[in-house]
Amino acid sequence: MDQAYPADPPLADLLNDVWLRLDPGVAERNAPARHLVLATVGRGGGGEARTVVLRAADRRQGLLCLHTDSASAKVAELTAQPLATLLLWDPPAQVQARLRCTIAARPGTDEEWQRVPDPSRRAYGGGPPPGRPILSPGDYGADADRARFTVLEAEVAEIDVLHLGGLRHLRARFARSDGWQGQWLAP
Amino acid sequence: MDQAYPADPPLADLLNDVWLRLDPGVAERNAPARHLVLATVGRGGGGEARTVVLRAADRRQGLLCLHTDSASAKVAELTAQPLATLLLWDPPAQVQARLRCTIAARPGTDEEWQRVPDPSRRAYGGGPPPGRPILSPGDYGADADRARFTVLEAEVAEIDVLHLGGLRHLRARFARSDGWQGQWLAP
Repeated sequence: MDQAYPADPPLADLLNDVWLRLDPGVAERNAPARHLVLATVGRGGGGEARTVVLRAADRRQGLLCLHTDSASAKVAELTAQPLATLLLWDPPAQVQARLRCTIAARPGTDEEWQRVPDPSRRAYGGGPPPGRPILSPGDYGADADRARFTVLEAEVAEIDVLHLGGLRHLRARFARSDGWQGQWLAP
Repeated sequence: MDQAYPADPPLADLLNDVWLRLDPGVAERNAPARHLVLATVGRGGGGEARTVVLRAADRRQGLLCLHTDSASAKVAELTAQPLATLLLWDPPAQVQARLRCTIAARPGTDEEWQRVPDPSRRAYGGGPPPGRPILSPGDYGADADRARFTVLEAEVAEIDVLHLGGLRHLRARFARSDGWQGQWLAP
């Protein structure tokens, strides 16, 4: 096997690269990491997924934050099974990061609520609750409800990175349990 | 509540729209539906997700196909728990479709294998198997192995559609069980 491939980056670069991609997702509307996919276990026992907006990323603590409505299905799903994955896919770079997390739902703080722009507050609240059958779209009324504003705190346990854009495919896994030292994997 | 919102499309349009978005994903490299996210239940019990390439979409049968390596973790996960979600997210249109499926893995047919371009065949096979620890990227060897070429057949049971791009958010669910007649949901 060809050990001396000139294009292989140091292992640590793959971890740095993930956080460098996550950071702009918090602030920039068009960053690839703006939208992640949150995969949970559904109440029926199968895999569930939806697109979410990244609200905070803290590399030092290995923590990501999302905002949601306390009445959403994902809160119920995460309460029953907190082990979930946040998926980052950056199409131009052909980089995928699977962040395996333990996710806890907690009420948003006043400080967090103050930072939500006025029109966006209507995403937290309203009736009937999300996912409930209605007769026509007009039977739903959006309304801001401070009490339903919920923060999902995702403590990252493991990051599985895949680079498909280079001379060959690279894959590595980094785990909190060993201080993120990392391990190459077969892609 | 405002029943007579001029922008509300007929319910059936939301289902048509999903299949019209899926179709180009099969043939066009840059279609938003080229890459879906497959969410499964991991062997550790939590939600897992990865990006996959859509290989076939058949509206009449309500069937989607993906290709994979029989040695990949998703085959083991789907064998243990076939209930999974395929997620379509179309950023310019701000349309999301969550396709809840029962997914079965079967060997790819000769006809399917013939349609896989030569360089892409190396994605099915190689050693060590995907996800196995290696000392350096050079310790993995890609190799085509016809015997490991696997097709994932996803029978769609339910489609949960969300439109965020219009004058107001629209959400509906369509189910095989009632002939896909559809139901508006609170977004």
